[in-house]
Amino acid sequence: MPVVVQDVSRASQDVIDRLGKAGVATVHEAQGRTGCMAPYLRPIFRGARIAGSAVTISSPPGDNWMLHVAIEQLKKGDIIVLAPTSACDDGYFGDLLATSAMARGCRGLIIDAGVRDVADLEQMGFPVWSKAISAQGTVKETLGSVNIPVVCAGQIVNAGDIIVADDDGVVVVKREDAETTLENAEKRLDAEEAKRVRLAAGELGLDIYDMRQRLADKGLKYV
Amino acid sequence: MPVVVQDVSRASQDVIDRLGKAGVATVHEAQGRTGCMAPYLRPIFRGARIAGSAVTISSPPGDNWMLHVAIEQLKKGDIIVLAPTSACDDGYFGDLLATSAMARGCRGLIIDAGVRDVADLEQMGFPVWSKAISAQGTVKETLGSVNIPVVCAGQIVNAGDIIVADDDGVVVVKREDAETTLENAEKRLDAEEAKRVRLAAGELGLDIYDMRQRLADKGLKYV
Amino acid sequence: MPVVVQDVSRASQDVIDRLGKAGVATVHEAQGRTGCMAPYLRPIFRGARIAGSAVTISSPPGDNWMLHVAIEQLKKGDIIVLAPTSACDDGYFGDLLATSAMARGCRGLIIDAGVRDVADLEQMGFPVWSKAISAQGTVKETLGSVNIPVVCAGQIVNAGDIIVADDDGVVVVKREDAETTLENAEKRLDAEEAKRVRLAAGELGLDIYDMRQRLADKGLKYV
Amino acid sequence: MPVVVQDVSRASQDVIDRLGKAGVATVHEAQGRTGCMAPYLRPIFRGARIAGSAVTISSPPGDNWMLHVAIEQLKKGDIIVLAPTSACDDGYFGDLLATSAMARGCRGLIIDAGVRDVADLEQMGFPVWSKAISAQGTVKETLGSVNIPVVCAGQIVNAGDIIVADDDGVVVVKREDAETTLENAEKRLDAEEAKRVRLAAGELGLDIYDMRQRLADKGLKYV
Amino acid sequence: MPVVVQDVSRASQDVIDRLGKAGVATVHEAQGRTGCMAPYLRPIFRGARIAGSAVTISSPPGDNWMLHVAIEQLKKGDIIVLAPTSACDDGYFGDLLATSAMARGCRGLIIDAGVRDVADLEQMGFPVWSKAISAQGTVKETLGSVNIPVVCAGQIVNAGDIIVADDDGVVVVKREDAETTLENAEKRLDAEEAKRVRLAAGELGLDIYDMRQRLADKGLKYV
Amino acid sequence: MPVVVQDVSRASQDVIDRLGKAGVATVHEAQGRTGCMAPYLRPIFRGARIAGSAVTISSPPGDNWMLHVAIEQLKKGDIIVLAPTSACDDGYFGDLLATSAMARGCRGLIIDAGVRDVADLEQMGFPVWSKAISAQGTVKETLGSVNIPVVCAGQIVNAGDIIVADDDGVVVVKREDAETTLENAEKRLDAEEAKRVRLAAGELGLDIYDMRQRLADKGLKYV
Repeated sequence: MPVVVQDVSRASQDVIDRLGKAGVATVHEAQGRTGCMAPYLRPIFRGARIAGSAVTISSPPGDNWMLHVAIEQLKKGDIIVLAPTSACDDGYFGDLLATSAMARGCRGLIIDAGVRDVADLEQMGFPVWSKAISAQGTVKETLGSVNIPVVCAGQIVNAGDIIVADDDGVVVVKREDAETTLENAEKRLDAEEAKRVRLAAGELGLDIYDMRQRLADKGLKYV
Repeated sequence: MPVVVQDVSRASQDVIDRLGKAGVATVHEAQGRTGCMAPYLRPIFRGARIAGSAVTISSPPGDNWMLHVAIEQLKKGDIIVLAPTSACDDGYFGDLLATSAMARGCRGLIIDAGVRDVADLEQMGFPVWSKAISAQGTVKETLGSVNIPVVCAGQIVNAGDIIVADDDGVVVVKREDAETTLENAEKRLDAEEAKRVRLAAGELGLDIYDMRQRLADKGLKYV
Repeated sequence: MPVVVQDVSRASQDVIDRLGKAGVATVHEAQGRTGCMAPYLRPIFRGARIAGSAVTISSPPGDNWMLHVAIEQLKKGDIIVLAPTSACDDGYFGDLLATSAMARGCRGLIIDAGVRDVADLEQMGFPVWSKAISAQGTVKETLGSVNIPVVCAGQIVNAGDIIVADDDGVVVVKREDAETTLENAEKRLDAEEAKRVRLAAGELGLDIYDMRQRLADKGLKYV
Repeated sequence: MPVVVQDVSRASQDVIDRLGKAGVATVHEAQGRTGCMAPYLRPIFRGARIAGSAVTISSPPGDNWMLHVAIEQLKKGDIIVLAPTSACDDGYFGDLLATSAMARGCRGLIIDAGVRDVADLEQMGFPVWSKAISAQGTVKETLGSVNIPVVCAGQIVNAGDIIVADDDGVVVVKREDAETTLENAEKRLDAEEAKRVRLAAGELGLDIYDMRQRLADKGLKYV
Repeated sequence: MPVVVQDVSRASQDVIDRLGKAGVATVHEAQGRTGCMAPYLRPIFRGARIAGSAVTISSPPGDNWMLHVAIEQLKKGDIIVLAPTSACDDGYFGDLLATSAMARGCRGLIIDAGVRDVADLEQMGFPVWSKAISAQGTVKETLGSVNIPVVCAGQIVNAGDIIVADDDGVVVVKREDAETTLENAEKRLDAEEAKRVRLAAGELGLDIYDMRQRLADKGLKYV
Repeated sequence: MPVVVQDVSRASQDVIDRLGKAGVATVHEAQGRTGCMAPYLRPIFRGARIAGSAVTISSPPGDNWMLHVAIEQLKKGDIIVLAPTSACDDGYFGDLLATSAMARGCRGLIIDAGVRDVADLEQMGFPVWSKAISAQGTVKETLGSVNIPVVCAGQIVNAGDIIVADDDGVVVVKREDAETTLENAEKRLDAEEAKRVRLAAGELGLDIYDMRQRLADKGLKYV
């Protein structure tokens, strides 16, 4: 049953990078308010914004062996996504694994568990979104799998799906939806810009979005 | 039942600003250790300290429609306080709403739910104390109310009450208690200054506060 | 029953300081993956790294009286460790107590409860690892004990045990294990350095740690 | 500041009892989906359904002194509502206090904290809705208040408000809304009965509530 | 995007029923320790054990409209699986919906949110595994989808997958793995019976499973 | 480092049984309000009340190997206390292990993790206090220790300490304090009986405990 899937399709790098530029909130809206991982995943430092193809890991609690296996599967620009098979806050990943992952071109880690050496990781510029920061170490005794579908912080992730992460959290875009999502996202960004100017000038959303009648119809009373 | 209360009394701006200068911990002590919102409300960036009059919102889970309605009710110096009608971490508020709120003179947002676009909000200098940071979007389908009494993070907030927020959290001062609380707070700050000097010089709180006899009377033993 | 133990043995300052330099993750590995406090303890600001001898406090919920008693027991280089007798997030400690503790040479506070005045504490350079940041004040009515064994965030701490704390969290080293743990930790740091160079050069952990055969024996399949 | 309010208006016993019969879910719907305490409040045993007038207590964490004070204020048919001033799971209430409260005609306890002696309480038939079951004892050192407005599990409760509690949780009805709420609740129960019969016969809610067109208009697709 | 998938393949009823008989813990082991939903899902009453084919619902927070849509899709023996699009504890489901679902032959509900009317549901014998019990009502304003893949309490569920639920929790079996899993499960039950007899007679697992040598090899010391 | 301590001193069976009769809340008061495990430990069924000597286990997350080792160390009347080395909800223990433990005379299990087969355990009459009920299985790959000091749900437990558990939770009594604690507990029970009679007759705690003057001195006002 423990398996490493080696043949993973990835979206085009240009599409991935432009999704990254759009950011998590916009991408998530662009695909119909879907794909956001749970908000308990938090960046270990502020200001990073990344996008890349997922290399997924299903790991037992307290066992980080599969990280070594997964690193060999990384291609330049990939992001590791680790989901434990049951809830665990242990520190699966630290500066040595980050050194190895960066040497393979990895852009970051999304982990539904803990991470450590966070001061080093920040200095190295290796971004991580994790459930916990924990120095608690792990063992290398039990197998897991690499590049199988996993559930990470409430979202299904398939190997090769696009991950976008920034200070707002993490969103997953199915590989086959990448182009459509990007198109929607960029349209949305354009539309937002115009609205921002009007709102900054003091116009009300009530008027810009023409909400007054609908509010009255629903029964809102001003007293 | 959904209602917008338009006529809200506010405390004097001078009292509000001086409460803000006193800070959350001092204000809360000054009103007899009451008024602190639960500590799960955290600032999205460090270093902001604000005070203002509350414009309150009661919103359904996952629905941010009432924010647009509330923004019209803002006066310069106000703070929005949003409480969902049941627990929700969704991102009700982002950079467009912040642009609109700032254009109306709003000083910040206290929200017992989630917020997004936090990198933009920090750059704009719009402070938020929230329960979560989440890109998860909301809808505009169900009415709520504006400027009715709400419970936000464990505290009753009436429209026009004074909100003070800093890195320690958020405290509410009833509008009618504003002057008394301010007086107590400023006395307290003066008294603290003298104690700080003595403590910094190495004097013990045991002696400054004359605690040794009372500790012995209660039965404390040194071994 | 409430008692202050005055005679506490401490490890040598040199050993303590070198443990601090090794850091939490390394120290914890060096003693067989033990001693880590639960990851909900978080630093109130990033970048501090401290080590010192524990002065322990057992306090009732919402009562910080024993902090004043404990400060008298501090020796230069000590760290206060406070555990409430039942779960509590209140702000037991703020800038006045920090002023007093710093005047006695205290290096920091580990508290399985809340702390306040965090902006001041950061400015003063007084590091705290806490469960919560909360302005909620406490009383001085009920006794506790100082320098008795306590359980803080899941770990037993005896007075005089060594505390190491950094951005990864907090670890406890029993006083009698200090030398052995230090020796292991420093060996570990030396070994890691060599591995870091190889990993940075693109070598895989799979090869450096000779894992391929063991993975195959356990049944890992590549597909 | 600590105060005992002795003069409390109560709703008519008949209205209270009929609200109790309607049950929590119905009463909450009848007042526009408001008034439900947070679902972490759970009954210590199943099958109790009570309604009564609130005698409120605001208590410090880990201090149950005010319960003794409140018991003197009880009238036959009342329900005690205790909210600690900061989060606390301690066991404020046990079989002795229950004996005393029952002797005064008290119908039950709603407590945003812990309770103990639950086996005895069940045997005595004294129902409690609490946040925790905990044997951890409390002290009698710090004053609180009785019959002031409190926030219990997210809801404002004024002395004399009506509390309804059953296996679904706890709901608060403002005293002045008692009659209107009851009227709505009883209408609702009548309407539900007719629907129950049709649904039991296999008719679909889609048809009974005439939803198909509205679903199509909103864009639901069947594939 | 909101869609109702009407054509769902189901496993054979015999296989489903025998999986139900095997129980959650055994089925989960039989598929390699996979498929368990998170343990925060709890039965609203003890003693139920069910198995059936999943009809899945993806619903907005605080909106139960799609339950009415899903009930029309139920076939005899099915189980409803509802996952909100963001975390929500509201009471989506009560006795009227249960009446309707039972009339269609539904065996139970798995819901990563709240449920109400639990006393009625227990009396009706309609089992539910939920995250919360909450009287808090929902609206019918925003569409979701029926029979699309969802993530419920950490597990992927496709329409037609087999759900097994008992006092230990809930496990999902992919439809295509049903036969293999059943075979493994029944073998496992047979093997367990023999071991139970030996253990009851006082034999040690250390001897039955021949663990002593392996423990010594790993370094276990008896002192 | 992994070790099994075989020589454990136990308190006298008579003292243990009388502590069990006194119950958790009384025993905890009798030793100065200490020793209560955190209230998240809950019995898997109501109505059990046990006392016994602790056989302790320190186990890695998701690994129940040491349970087999510990069972050999059990003496008639013992209670197993398992603490994982990092937080874990997995189901470490089920009906087979319970069969084995009961065959050795074990009275129950206290586990700061999960348990499964709870319907079977209830039928067998084997009581468990656990953090979770979870079918999620564990492995047997990594060593832990037996009969070393552990921290379980916030309390230090040494092998041979007395555990008392009932519907209110779990309390630990240090072996060397057993007689003193028992004496205090039995005195307390006698004193309570007299108070119960007076309270049942309608006398107030305010009068029985002579609180009125002290309340007035502290500043309580009746209005």
